[in-house]
Amino acid sequence: MIVVWDEVFFQGRRQEFTAECYDVRACGFQTLRSFKIESGAWAGFEHVGFQGQQFVLERGEYPRWEAWSGSHAYHVERMSSFRPIACANHRDSKMTIFEWENFLGRKGELSDDYPSLPAMGWGSSAVSSFRAHSGAWVCSQFPGYRGFQYILECDRHAGEYKHVREWGSHAQTSQVQSIRRIQQ
Amino acid sequence: MIVVWDEVFFQGRRQEFTAECYDVRACGFQTLRSFKIESGAWAGFEHVGFQGQQFVLERGEYPRWEAWSGSHAYHVERMSSFRPIACANHRDSKMTIFEWENFLGRKGELSDDYPSLPAMGWGSSAVSSFRAHSGAWVCSQFPGYRGFQYILECDRHAGEYKHVREWGSHAQTSQVQSIRRIQQ
Repeated sequence: MIVVWDEVFFQGRRQEFTAECYDVRACGFQTLRSFKIESGAWAGFEHVGFQGQQFVLERGEYPRWEAWSGSHAYHVERMSSFRPIACANHRDSKMTIFEWENFLGRKGELSDDYPSLPAMGWGSSAVSSFRAHSGAWVCSQFPGYRGFQYILECDRHAGEYKHVREWGSHAQTSQVQSIRRIQQ
Repeated sequence: MIVVWDEVFFQGRRQEFTAECYDVRACGFQTLRSFKIESGAWAGFEHVGFQGQQFVLERGEYPRWEAWSGSHAYHVERMSSFRPIACANHRDSKMTIFEWENFLGRKGELSDDYPSLPAMGWGSSAVSSFRAHSGAWVCSQFPGYRGFQYILECDRHAGEYKHVREWGSHAQTSQVQSIRRIQQ
């Protein structure tokens, strides 16, 4: 369950959701400024219809959108839609990463969290395609899970992400330097 | 080794460091706009003398400070000092977290990465004291390793962080919702 408010620090109009929300405006919200994740893991999106920049929301409290979202250079004004993420048991998550598009080139098998892919021997600052065998993952542009993020799920696209354009509606770079499992 | 540049995308004045830098201005840099971590893990700081906001720098490329640092609300203009972090073998890292200051109240034993402490059963959005038995850790204000960060090392303060004011020179909140090991 996700609980959302239109003011910071859990004030103002409040609503609970147990399923996806395609457009927060259709639920009477101009914007969301704070939220709590009570159960499950959720994907938040910049635009309606699950488009634009992606955010992973795991259990906990998010009292101020501004304090939490994006970086100074990649400022995202608001979250306009969200949906639950289906995760595997944390230990059972498996993914293969590929150096080139279409599952070509050098590959790496992942089953853990990797704050720095270069530190674990991946010889590049890019990943060009992914095959999510089990679970849900989030990859990030910079080490330490920072910069642009993309959510990769075994239950979507049959777990296959062959090109940057399949990672999300705004994906522009295949720079990927950290990857981790999403925690349910 | 950390390599720094005064322009974005690894342009301009360049210098390599294998040991700490107390003040980047003393090395002839007005500011640092891009850097690469070639080996080890490093701690970056907002102010000279390892003061102010803290940033973990693990192996990889950081082409634009602005794209990487902080959030929109907690904008940090620059990195003014940095030093290496002594990490343990990733599997040997151990830490105890406490609900109250001075190692009191409920406690939790950690030896893994936790993108959401609430998801692993920690019944609070705060941690008030830490004992780092082995390795170096980074705790973050929000789930998913976002918001203010503090670096906790077994080699500093004898690994003991009893009060918020011992976490760093600007620490203002004991809100901690994610914790992970730092990757060497």
